[in-house]
Amino acid sequence: MSEFTATDHLLMARALRLAERGAYTTRPNPMVGCVIAHGDEVVGEGYHQRAGEAHAEVLALQAAGERARGATAYVTLEPCAHTGRTGPCADALVAAGVARVVAAMRDPFPQVDGAGFDTLEAAGIRVTHGLMEAQARELNRGYLSRLVRGRPWVRVKLATSLDGRSALANGESKWISGEASRHDVQHWRARAGAIITGAGTVLADDPSLTVRLGDDTPFEPPLRVVLDAGLATITRGRVREGDAPTLYIHAPDTKLSRGISAQLATVAVKGGRFDLHEVLALLAGRGINEVQVEAGATLAAAFLEAGLVDELLLYIAPVLMGSQARPLFDGLNIEHMTDKLQLDIIETRRLGDDMRVLLQPRRDDAVVASGGR
Amino acid sequence: MSEFTATDHLLMARALRLAERGAYTTRPNPMVGCVIAHGDEVVGEGYHQRAGEAHAEVLALQAAGERARGATAYVTLEPCAHTGRTGPCADALVAAGVARVVAAMRDPFPQVDGAGFDTLEAAGIRVTHGLMEAQARELNRGYLSRLVRGRPWVRVKLATSLDGRSALANGESKWISGEASRHDVQHWRARAGAIITGAGTVLADDPSLTVRLGDDTPFEPPLRVVLDAGLATITRGRVREGDAPTLYIHAPDTKLSRGISAQLATVAVKGGRFDLHEVLALLAGRGINEVQVEAGATLAAAFLEAGLVDELLLYIAPVLMGSQARPLFDGLNIEHMTDKLQLDIIETRRLGDDMRVLLQPRRDDAVVASGGR
Repeated sequence: MSEFTATDHLLMARALRLAERGAYTTRPNPMVGCVIAHGDEVVGEGYHQRAGEAHAEVLALQAAGERARGATAYVTLEPCAHTGRTGPCADALVAAGVARVVAAMRDPFPQVDGAGFDTLEAAGIRVTHGLMEAQARELNRGYLSRLVRGRPWVRVKLATSLDGRSALANGESKWISGEASRHDVQHWRARAGAIITGAGTVLADDPSLTVRLGDDTPFEPPLRVVLDAGLATITRGRVREGDAPTLYIHAPDTKLSRGISAQLATVAVKGGRFDLHEVLALLAGRGINEVQVEAGATLAAAFLEAGLVDELLLYIAPVLMGSQARPLFDGLNIEHMTDKLQLDIIETRRLGDDMRVLLQPRRDDAVVASGGR
Repeated sequence: MSEFTATDHLLMARALRLAERGAYTTRPNPMVGCVIAHGDEVVGEGYHQRAGEAHAEVLALQAAGERARGATAYVTLEPCAHTGRTGPCADALVAAGVARVVAAMRDPFPQVDGAGFDTLEAAGIRVTHGLMEAQARELNRGYLSRLVRGRPWVRVKLATSLDGRSALANGESKWISGEASRHDVQHWRARAGAIITGAGTVLADDPSLTVRLGDDTPFEPPLRVVLDAGLATITRGRVREGDAPTLYIHAPDTKLSRGISAQLATVAVKGGRFDLHEVLALLAGRGINEVQVEAGATLAAAFLEAGLVDELLLYIAPVLMGSQARPLFDGLNIEHMTDKLQLDIIETRRLGDDMRVLLQPRRDDAVVASGGR
């Protein structure tokens, strides 16, 4: 893209970093960052922090004041053209007299989808887009997944031993990974709109699935979703405690006991298994962009087999648990080497004694993220 | 160690790098590097390339010529004091008139073991040692293991899927790891004195276990060792072909067919398993410093259970092979999380699509290497 200068790249990178500050709070809205500059002199910047509050462009324009006139605005997503809870950002950019708008990508949101660019161009503003689009798509992979595919982006988090075991034969699984890994998970939870677990994990591990960042970073508590066909776990567990909401998904024919107060929803069960496509569609309908699955080997394998895993977040502890221990994915059956499930390593990092490996299944239908990180 | 200056560290690091150039060729001798300098001006350097050829100190002294007089000699190992296939290096350093010798470590070889330092000191040379000793011990971990523990340093190499599988249920295992990983293995083979495999691997995979570096780097072909109690594989296989020698280790009561020409040795078998301590003692007796085990899940587990693994070289391919596939260590049984086998990650590296992870079991008897890499 020779139409963009080195300064354009630098300032868009800055806008992307700003946008990411909203990762724990903008849901269901996308993360957006905006930098307003004359040449390489930044005169205003902002990012969208919470749905219902000011958009990135408005904050950046406020900061720039009169200096917005004749400036270039770098935005990580097409400025909105519709009046939602706030007024259209495209109009605000026009009113402020910016001369040029550089956007990383078009916003597929039906009420925008090019209309923002049209508004700007109609007002004589020079508009270009596609700068660092891969990074922008990856940043909002959850939002884009929900809009484009009608389901959230699905990240499966698992802790494993070196020999690919998630628990001992007797079910013991606590503390496979170390403290640094367990702390790291909190940040991935914080950016998820929902955390899915299964009844088996609630019974075996009794996790709270709340976000505990250990500092005062603001975040929106993700919805905790328990897949429990028969509602066997509804009266118990730390997953019902704490400040975050909890949703139980059960089979349509499950009888509800009286006096149970909980958020409930039904999803079809076939052959003892929930239709996971339907589970995800239900969550998308509630504005969930990103889902983090923190479950046992069986539910993790079910997501994989359904082709619904976008990202695998693997904490590998340098321990051996032996060949009697439980597999990482239970029920994942592969007959021939040509059928083995191929992934790509997106990133690796050492965390205390452990390794964190982020992977994405290799496939051709990557409509959302382009993977380049 | 305040007795050493920054220049001392720099020049010893250089000597260590020189020493490592002999990694593929010095066996059974240790790798040794030598740098001769006045202050930070290097006047001569050398490394030991092959047993029977000149030692590092002699090569460095030759290069320095008259300028060795009054200089400091940096050696990664105590200079020898005995006449082996070459004359004593300690005498050569004295004759050349060096003023100071800095050694990384004492040589535990019975005919040296302090006698080199004594010779130097008796001649009025200032001798200090212990500079970068951890690195020097790690460099020669094989040599030290053989001398101190009476057995080679054991590295187990394995290729695994993300879910800890070494082969599919049907035995298919070829090409778990990618080309970059398979090339990388060659370098680890080249520094091993012997490569151990089992009869099962010979039958299933028919590996040649030769070193194929792909360039003209000189190396000594490692001894290929096949553990085959009944000599079922002795007439076949690529492990018998090529330029490297092959040793078959069999049970004492195995009948030898006529007309078989091969190197043979016997080791006791208990309960269908070789006594691996005895296997290693036998190899140490033949001057093997480092062993690389390239075998299946059962033999790998046997080495682990015997407490004989010093280093685990794991190539992790980003694929999933499913819960029916064969485990990484077959027969490794662990009952409780407190019994899980703990290792330490020494190094991680991306190799093509794969990850290479070098680990060492965590234990208290680390007599050889101090692990700091």
